[in-house]
Amino acid sequence: MRPRGRRPGGADTRAAIVEAARTEFAAQGYDATSLRGIARAAGVDPALVHHYFGGKPEVFAEVMSIPVDLASLVGGVVSSPRDQVGEVMVRTFLHVWDSADGRLRFQALVRSAVSHEEAARMLREFLVREVFGKVSAAFAAREGHPGVELRAALAAGQMVGMAMLRYVLEFPVVVDSSQEELVAELGPVLQKYLAP
Amino acid sequence: MRPRGRRPGGADTRAAIVEAARTEFAAQGYDATSLRGIARAAGVDPALVHHYFGGKPEVFAEVMSIPVDLASLVGGVVSSPRDQVGEVMVRTFLHVWDSADGRLRFQALVRSAVSHEEAARMLREFLVREVFGKVSAAFAAREGHPGVELRAALAAGQMVGMAMLRYVLEFPVVVDSSQEELVAELGPVLQKYLAP
Repeated sequence: MRPRGRRPGGADTRAAIVEAARTEFAAQGYDATSLRGIARAAGVDPALVHHYFGGKPEVFAEVMSIPVDLASLVGGVVSSPRDQVGEVMVRTFLHVWDSADGRLRFQALVRSAVSHEEAARMLREFLVREVFGKVSAAFAAREGHPGVELRAALAAGQMVGMAMLRYVLEFPVVVDSSQEELVAELGPVLQKYLAP
Repeated sequence: MRPRGRRPGGADTRAAIVEAARTEFAAQGYDATSLRGIARAAGVDPALVHHYFGGKPEVFAEVMSIPVDLASLVGGVVSSPRDQVGEVMVRTFLHVWDSADGRLRFQALVRSAVSHEEAARMLREFLVREVFGKVSAAFAAREGHPGVELRAALAAGQMVGMAMLRYVLEFPVVVDSSQEELVAELGPVLQKYLAP
């Protein structure tokens, strides 16, 4: 989508919004930050923040350099056929992170989470609110059994841990595995967690 | 009271060995470092390194502040009854890391692995050589099917990822789960990886 009509400063304005958002998220966490607050800090109209980014998850993704259209990825996992959800989740994860760039971004995320308490907090709130909350809510509604929230988190943990071995510690056997080999091993595990 | 002459004095010598080992491991990685090399760098007899620490894994554990008797833990997993290996692995992991101190040590390990290429390398070499190599070799011998090395690594990845959520990102549902709840969910997953 291109900015329409009068453009108050284009790239500069966009950068100012991202900078203001970075400060707001770090100071208040993800949940307590609003688009309105970000706009105020950036000295722009809230409609402009909405115009440039869409919503709060998209601003956050930009701040954290998470290179994805998160809503459509989460939507894709949640709406996948029940018996394919494990495989879809693995493929989606590898699609996002399995590139030289993704690898560096994953490292950067882990580095900031482990070095700054406020980064861990905003990342946690974002992931719980926008990713795992949505996934586990969808499966709780579908499956209707208790413990689905913990199992959704452990499924996420499986992928985070695989990524630690593939992108950070670089375990040879994990680095050398193809995406298909990983899907074949991890898909059934995630399937069992989410929709046994 | 010990005579302080030819034989270098207790705590100082031990600290000097740890310091020399830290430098050697960082410079050369885990695999290429020898007890002899550490002794040379510390200016002591190799027998003294052996006397204080036992072997190379124990020196490394000391350098990395890994608070465990690694050999006995790995031995416990490897020698557990086939149908209990998943549960034993989860319990062993939680036993090591599930304390205020363990949590901080886990954070410190992740921080150094993600911040320093040489730390990631020596940690990887150590884990592959002394932990996962031994576990997967034991199961390859027992199970005799291919892919056991990747599955042992993914089992490890599951635990590393759980630890990222429990000790670093502090996902509420993972933090609030008891050890027994985690054993109940994770045990069968690890069991399936290691001895299906």
